[in-house]
Amino acid sequence: MKIAILGFGTVGKGVYEIVKKANMQTQNLSVSHILIRKNKIRTMPEMTDDMSEILTDKDVDVVVEVMGGIEPAHEYILAALNHGKNVITANKAVVAIYLKEFTEAAERNHVKFYFEASVGGGIPWIQGLEKALRIDNVNSISGIFNGTSNFILDQMSKKGQPFVEVLKEAQKLGYAEADPSADIDGYDIANKLCISADIAYDIDIKNHQKLPIFGIRNITCEDVKYFQKRGLAVKLIGRSHQKDNKFDYVVEPALFLDQTLEANTPDNYNLISLNGETIGKLDFFGQGAGMLPTANAIVQDILDVKERKSHLKRDFDKRMEYCPDLTKGDYLLRTKVNVSELFKNYQVSKEGSYLVVHQIPVGMMHKLMKLVLQEDKAAFMVSLPDQEVA
Amino acid sequence: MKIAILGFGTVGKGVYEIVKKANMQTQNLSVSHILIRKNKIRTMPEMTDDMSEILTDKDVDVVVEVMGGIEPAHEYILAALNHGKNVITANKAVVAIYLKEFTEAAERNHVKFYFEASVGGGIPWIQGLEKALRIDNVNSISGIFNGTSNFILDQMSKKGQPFVEVLKEAQKLGYAEADPSADIDGYDIANKLCISADIAYDIDIKNHQKLPIFGIRNITCEDVKYFQKRGLAVKLIGRSHQKDNKFDYVVEPALFLDQTLEANTPDNYNLISLNGETIGKLDFFGQGAGMLPTANAIVQDILDVKERKSHLKRDFDKRMEYCPDLTKGDYLLRTKVNVSELFKNYQVSKEGSYLVVHQIPVGMMHKLMKLVLQEDKAAFMVSLPDQEVA
Repeated sequence: MKIAILGFGTVGKGVYEIVKKANMQTQNLSVSHILIRKNKIRTMPEMTDDMSEILTDKDVDVVVEVMGGIEPAHEYILAALNHGKNVITANKAVVAIYLKEFTEAAERNHVKFYFEASVGGGIPWIQGLEKALRIDNVNSISGIFNGTSNFILDQMSKKGQPFVEVLKEAQKLGYAEADPSADIDGYDIANKLCISADIAYDIDIKNHQKLPIFGIRNITCEDVKYFQKRGLAVKLIGRSHQKDNKFDYVVEPALFLDQTLEANTPDNYNLISLNGETIGKLDFFGQGAGMLPTANAIVQDILDVKERKSHLKRDFDKRMEYCPDLTKGDYLLRTKVNVSELFKNYQVSKEGSYLVVHQIPVGMMHKLMKLVLQEDKAAFMVSLPDQEVA
Repeated sequence: MKIAILGFGTVGKGVYEIVKKANMQTQNLSVSHILIRKNKIRTMPEMTDDMSEILTDKDVDVVVEVMGGIEPAHEYILAALNHGKNVITANKAVVAIYLKEFTEAAERNHVKFYFEASVGGGIPWIQGLEKALRIDNVNSISGIFNGTSNFILDQMSKKGQPFVEVLKEAQKLGYAEADPSADIDGYDIANKLCISADIAYDIDIKNHQKLPIFGIRNITCEDVKYFQKRGLAVKLIGRSHQKDNKFDYVVEPALFLDQTLEANTPDNYNLISLNGETIGKLDFFGQGAGMLPTANAIVQDILDVKERKSHLKRDFDKRMEYCPDLTKGDYLLRTKVNVSELFKNYQVSKEGSYLVVHQIPVGMMHKLMKLVLQEDKAAFMVSLPDQEVA
């Protein structure tokens, strides 16, 4: 089976390396094309800067898209599907928006569109979720979906270093980008959460402008120390619930009791969980990013195409209402401004340097937090354990 | 697709219940036969005490064996395969011995033999392992494979209660059998570890008399308290490594640092892990037993048969040498007898009420422990973190 790789960054190189491994060669896989940018130098015979060469080559069975970004990834994926190529991608940004369009195009052209690597890197999360859905309704999903933010919070906890210092270290180690916003402000998690919710509930969120997001940019050493004293660990998570044809979703810092799997997910690892009717709580832990784990997930999808293993069929056209008030919980809020008027409809108590806002709907907390941030750019909030679905 | 269930205990009833669920009925599944014992009263129309009725009914596509025990489970599984029925079982005892025989019989008869539920209950462990093996050599597997022993150790840690008291509570809750030996002496884990190692290394352990096993019967409150003071949690685990065509395996109490997933696996949950070349460490956490989770795993296998999803093909005929000295580590040993002669070849130091045996091969430690037990029936040992493969 011939594979064309679009983009030759870390993950693209990983795919190339795994396909070259001895036990993969017995599978009769080989990389025939590597698409590079127009002005790059071709250092390998497989390299080309001409996408149409790949599209028109009848021997290419699978196109692996690992360029990242929205365009031209979206255009190339669609073109490949429409040229009768199976497509596999690790690109969460493009999948979060175009999952339904890609799925329909694949169906129309009798090819496969797989994207295991787009969420949780090497963790078999998409397939685990799809498998659970063959039998169960999945009532909630949640997870530490982003390794960079987890590395930062873990280092802050273990070494007591301030956010900015740890971020710099993460950038030096190659864990964080020069512009770290996607990782620390929660947009990367938002993409992965939307893809997961699309599958879990068979919906098409597509444009997730409503999704409440709050990142970890404002967290301080003192915050982390205080949480630790209370026997709690802070993690940046994505979480979604469904009930009675309504769903919610949120990206926010959350506190977990010290003796939970979440609290003990170290370094840049991911932990992703689902809760199903008969299966109960199921958790998947592993490398959520990195060259070989992510490439492994891509090659798994390639093998599924080769072995004609169909993934769960989803139409993404169930109607469900996004309900920002579906889940209620307690939040710790740290701010210098007086918020008594803003939170007057909720019970608020004082705890050290923090306010505790009791039993506030998640969507409302995020809405009010936006107003707090207008007055106090350094304000921080974090959810306490034991949120409840209404 | 018509299903015959052999045995109608907890798991059999769970399978019946899940198949009756609305979204399963659209899958066109139904239970046509339930095999009960000769002198039991037939309370449902599907019940029969005649195995040959099931074998000769051409409409039966899948036989689900959930009787437990070796015979007649072994005989019935073989008969069903030889009559052209797909067979799915949750019976680890029979799979641990006859995996190769069943696999060959299934192949010969062009049917499937699946056994996801036999290890880790509802956790998709077998399939997760098989999936990893499509790409990677798996270098080690390990896990908290038994919920009952984990419940006991967890309760001892959290409540400070003695072993015997917690065992009684577990029996009252239905977590432990009247004869708890399989759970607390490690035989249940041994079966699950052997099945996992058979798959991981493509070998046929079959008769695992060589496997070093040490259970938790002798653990005391004081042991647990001491470990906690040292920042360690004790778990009864199964573990196996491979290197250079050699493998080892062991069932033993092991200490884990407080901030590990293992240490934080609560109640009767299971946590099973693999380490692969490109995928790294991958962990699966969930309900390792119980009616619905185990039945869920069985119905997943039924759906794989229905959707013609083949599992990894293994012949179980690779030659690998069992090497009891492959892994070395430190052990804590508590005994009243003088063991200085017995352990004279190893560095031994004193630590509170314990001896620390340094860098001893796992197989040797278990061998010497057997001799210690002859003199001191209450002796206890536990491995310290950071074992190393030679």
